[in-house]
Amino acid sequence: MSGSLDFSPRILMGPGPSNVDARVLQAMALPPIGHLDPEFIKIMERIKTMLREVMLTDNELTIPVSGTGSAGMEAALCNLIEPGDRCVVCVHGVFGGRMAEICARYGAEVVTVEAPWGQPTDPDDVSQALAEGATKLVAIVHAETSTGVLQPLEEISRITHQAGVLLVVDTVASLGGHPVRVDEWGIDVCYSGTQKCLSIPPGLAPITFSPQAVAALDSRPTKVANWYLDMSLVRHYWGEERTYHHTAPVNALYGFHEGLRLVLAEGLEARWSRHQANHELLVAGLTEMGLEMLPDPNYRLWSLNAVRIPEWVDDVAVRQRLLNEYDIEIGGGLGDLKGNVWRIGLMGASSTPNNVLMLLGALNEILD
Amino acid sequence: MSGSLDFSPRILMGPGPSNVDARVLQAMALPPIGHLDPEFIKIMERIKTMLREVMLTDNELTIPVSGTGSAGMEAALCNLIEPGDRCVVCVHGVFGGRMAEICARYGAEVVTVEAPWGQPTDPDDVSQALAEGATKLVAIVHAETSTGVLQPLEEISRITHQAGVLLVVDTVASLGGHPVRVDEWGIDVCYSGTQKCLSIPPGLAPITFSPQAVAALDSRPTKVANWYLDMSLVRHYWGEERTYHHTAPVNALYGFHEGLRLVLAEGLEARWSRHQANHELLVAGLTEMGLEMLPDPNYRLWSLNAVRIPEWVDDVAVRQRLLNEYDIEIGGGLGDLKGNVWRIGLMGASSTPNNVLMLLGALNEILD
Repeated sequence: MSGSLDFSPRILMGPGPSNVDARVLQAMALPPIGHLDPEFIKIMERIKTMLREVMLTDNELTIPVSGTGSAGMEAALCNLIEPGDRCVVCVHGVFGGRMAEICARYGAEVVTVEAPWGQPTDPDDVSQALAEGATKLVAIVHAETSTGVLQPLEEISRITHQAGVLLVVDTVASLGGHPVRVDEWGIDVCYSGTQKCLSIPPGLAPITFSPQAVAALDSRPTKVANWYLDMSLVRHYWGEERTYHHTAPVNALYGFHEGLRLVLAEGLEARWSRHQANHELLVAGLTEMGLEMLPDPNYRLWSLNAVRIPEWVDDVAVRQRLLNEYDIEIGGGLGDLKGNVWRIGLMGASSTPNNVLMLLGALNEILD
Repeated sequence: MSGSLDFSPRILMGPGPSNVDARVLQAMALPPIGHLDPEFIKIMERIKTMLREVMLTDNELTIPVSGTGSAGMEAALCNLIEPGDRCVVCVHGVFGGRMAEICARYGAEVVTVEAPWGQPTDPDDVSQALAEGATKLVAIVHAETSTGVLQPLEEISRITHQAGVLLVVDTVASLGGHPVRVDEWGIDVCYSGTQKCLSIPPGLAPITFSPQAVAALDSRPTKVANWYLDMSLVRHYWGEERTYHHTAPVNALYGFHEGLRLVLAEGLEARWSRHQANHELLVAGLTEMGLEMLPDPNYRLWSLNAVRIPEWVDDVAVRQRLLNEYDIEIGGGLGDLKGNVWRIGLMGASSTPNNVLMLLGALNEILD
């Protein structure tokens, strides 16, 4: 082995990647087989079945996109949008803003519904935006990694479907850590990433399309502008036809298979409870230290804890000491919140009471 | 470990993936660290340096795209093309056709230069196409995996640059197995995949942009239509700014790092010679069995050997016996050549005399 791949293992408590179970890493190190090998096709079939269970959906088109969570976002949007389509995009952080940016690149007429960073989008604002013009889709982030806000979805879903509009939801930072009920909540396209609450290395983006979303894809008069992410092609590789589109990232899919298996072995409810309990433990400890959370208690993510940096504290110096002296990674603020918050991830395998205790202890020493 | 990831290891002699050295697999199983961790940034820097050596280029913008070889193709084209640009695309197989398709999706005026499948493109045809209109780029496949044809590039590069046009070259099936001299041959954008002659699992696409290609990107009046592959953004993550764009596929990059190290440890010249020698061994054996190669001897790839299937032979039955009885994967024909050729890969770690002997032995038994 190259001496040059020497580095300290880290305790990953930032906005992702999170720590990965050794069984997932071992699965990724199995020798690749062909992407059309019958043995590999069996693995693909099991992946689809397990992913439906994790996403709580019966949607047939439920697969991992061969790119990171951002590719999932682009796949969700580019497959639905045709030039001129009106898209209502809810923006209450960096990732809502990114959705708006991507919609615009595909020629959409973008209408943003803004909420202050640290707060969720108000359903009434969505209602009003939908009333102002015929709309193709509403796009919203369920778990805003930049602000630590959990966005309630049920009321917005009701309003969106009442208007006959498709609902696209980003669950990159919630799937596997918070309840994400794709079918029950009426989400038409839901995507996520692997490296957060699923605790699988970054590189894949789980995505699911409702029958209504597939119908919209099927009835496009124009081709999807993006070839690599064109679901009208990709689905025939993941479907019974097995038509070659691009070479599947075989070893990443081994890890995905094993990671999904571990999520289901733990059980979704148990996993959500674990994320909630460790979040509460962290917030209690931070509060005791006199630190304040950014979001209101009603809208706090369990997986990503945005805490205000006191004015007397040097953001970068603290994070560097955590990394260099304690091998603990936490995240700095993103976009408008740069320098104002830390983002402490408790995702997947990183969400343990011991990690919370370690971080609180280290912060106590550094801030003392 | 899940019993469900049980499968036979295979000897991969198809069009990719190829077999992977255990050291690369072990590297991929190292625990992930953060994509902005200073330790990870060191790994990224070494990757860029090694990739430049493998691609024989000094181009600063030389990185792996976070997707498979097909994403590399799309990244090469979408970053240069603006709606209305005239693109001359050389088509002598499936992948040239795919380039034309992608160019069209980005709004290009596509002019194809066709050659019969099994033959390379004639430089005179490129010359003529360039004479007929102001052109943005010429796109061509160096190693056409669908036909086994090696495309000479130097004359076409001369013609293209004489016309003041950018040259985009697909080296998915040649980089690491055949000489690919990016700077010497004047290639403006060159991309490849990892899972062929580099023998790294699929999931990344090495790509390099010449200063002229970067200038074209910089002077675009319009944004790149594809957000995930937008090099004007991605380069600031791989550059000194380290600006977050998407979460890098950390573990895939560990494997990429180790795979590049192994390529350079062997040495490019030695590696090319090995690919040539094993190709010659295979062709001699196939010829002795009375089988014929599709391409002319002057234009044969060493990495991908397209051999005509005799009329009396059942294509699928032979490939199934190879897979089921011998655990050897070879490829069937693609597109127009389906049922007419086998595609035998001798790529990277799969290119060994023993693999050639095994396959010849197995084919002899099956065809006997």
